[in-house]
Amino acid sequence: MSRKAAGPEIERLIQILARLPGLGSRSARKAALSLIKRRNDLLLPLTEALNVAAERIVTCDLCGNIDTISPCTICEDERRDRSMIVVVEDVGDLWALERAGVVNARYHVLGGQLSPLDGIGPDQLNIPRLIERARPPEVVEVLLALNATVEGQSTAHYLREQLAPSGVKVSVLQQGVPVGGELDYLDEGTLAAAIKARRSL
Amino acid sequence: MSRKAAGPEIERLIQILARLPGLGSRSARKAALSLIKRRNDLLLPLTEALNVAAERIVTCDLCGNIDTISPCTICEDERRDRSMIVVVEDVGDLWALERAGVVNARYHVLGGQLSPLDGIGPDQLNIPRLIERARPPEVVEVLLALNATVEGQSTAHYLREQLAPSGVKVSVLQQGVPVGGELDYLDEGTLAAAIKARRSL
Repeated sequence: MSRKAAGPEIERLIQILARLPGLGSRSARKAALSLIKRRNDLLLPLTEALNVAAERIVTCDLCGNIDTISPCTICEDERRDRSMIVVVEDVGDLWALERAGVVNARYHVLGGQLSPLDGIGPDQLNIPRLIERARPPEVVEVLLALNATVEGQSTAHYLREQLAPSGVKVSVLQQGVPVGGELDYLDEGTLAAAIKARRSL
Repeated sequence: MSRKAAGPEIERLIQILARLPGLGSRSARKAALSLIKRRNDLLLPLTEALNVAAERIVTCDLCGNIDTISPCTICEDERRDRSMIVVVEDVGDLWALERAGVVNARYHVLGGQLSPLDGIGPDQLNIPRLIERARPPEVVEVLLALNATVEGQSTAHYLREQLAPSGVKVSVLQQGVPVGGELDYLDEGTLAAAIKARRSL
């Protein structure tokens, strides 16, 4: 026989926590227990942060980023190079590039990647708005910073075709050996790409 | 150069999520992004569940379990054998035993285990209340369902000494090979315990 261990209120909390990426049902139980035990330094602050997020966070009408204003802080940043748009699949990718501090341009967040099998076609993504934005003379280059996966690459292929008529330059990230990567841990595709794109010293 | 990728509201949410057990800073960012993107089916329900937890969940005065009532549902359950108390370190352990449906007695939650190095002595644990509860004739057996770790075992040792004067029977979980366990993956200690506690077929 199996019984519900906790009351319905706690079970509901566990259930919702388990929907978060990275939390299985076991870790969701641990998280729920932590929240309940650490009411003042965890449960109440989280509730407050979620309330703030629910009330104040919006999607940028221009680029699809999330922020408390629209257009977002990045789109409004006058110091950024306006001649380039960096296209990413997801806000998480935008954050990764911003943390690295390697982009001084504006972004465009697609909100996913083309995946016909999952029913995700161009209409489900933030693509028409990109075509609209990526026009010379203001914008001269669109960098497709998409995942190096089959879906990412076919999304890049589709975008290159859609952007061609505008005359904007379309670029993609270089593939190669990750910094700090050890050769004998890398897959064959990465090694092949790194050799193909080799540079002279 | 490294910049904050998201605004302060989102950074705060990420920071708090990263305090949950099982979530590192990377998965906390993923979780925050999910929450923001899935406002209606994730963010708002989680906020509501946390509010309910904050308002309604209390610690059982008798056994230390968490519930919406005190004494808790388990302590109040008339169908449970009142002659036995199962001692666990943590509410998570109580949940594990309840899910397995292997206990039909009441519990006592210590709220931790003895760990002199971390400054956790008997006074920091819910031990005096256990000594008070574990008295014949109502209670005849105390099962110490503690972790098979050094701390768990020294806690068990301490409790056995404290409970001895009452005349109550003190038992512990059997050690051995886990069900479904493969011998060549088990540590020597487990194998030794399983051989020592072997039973005839």
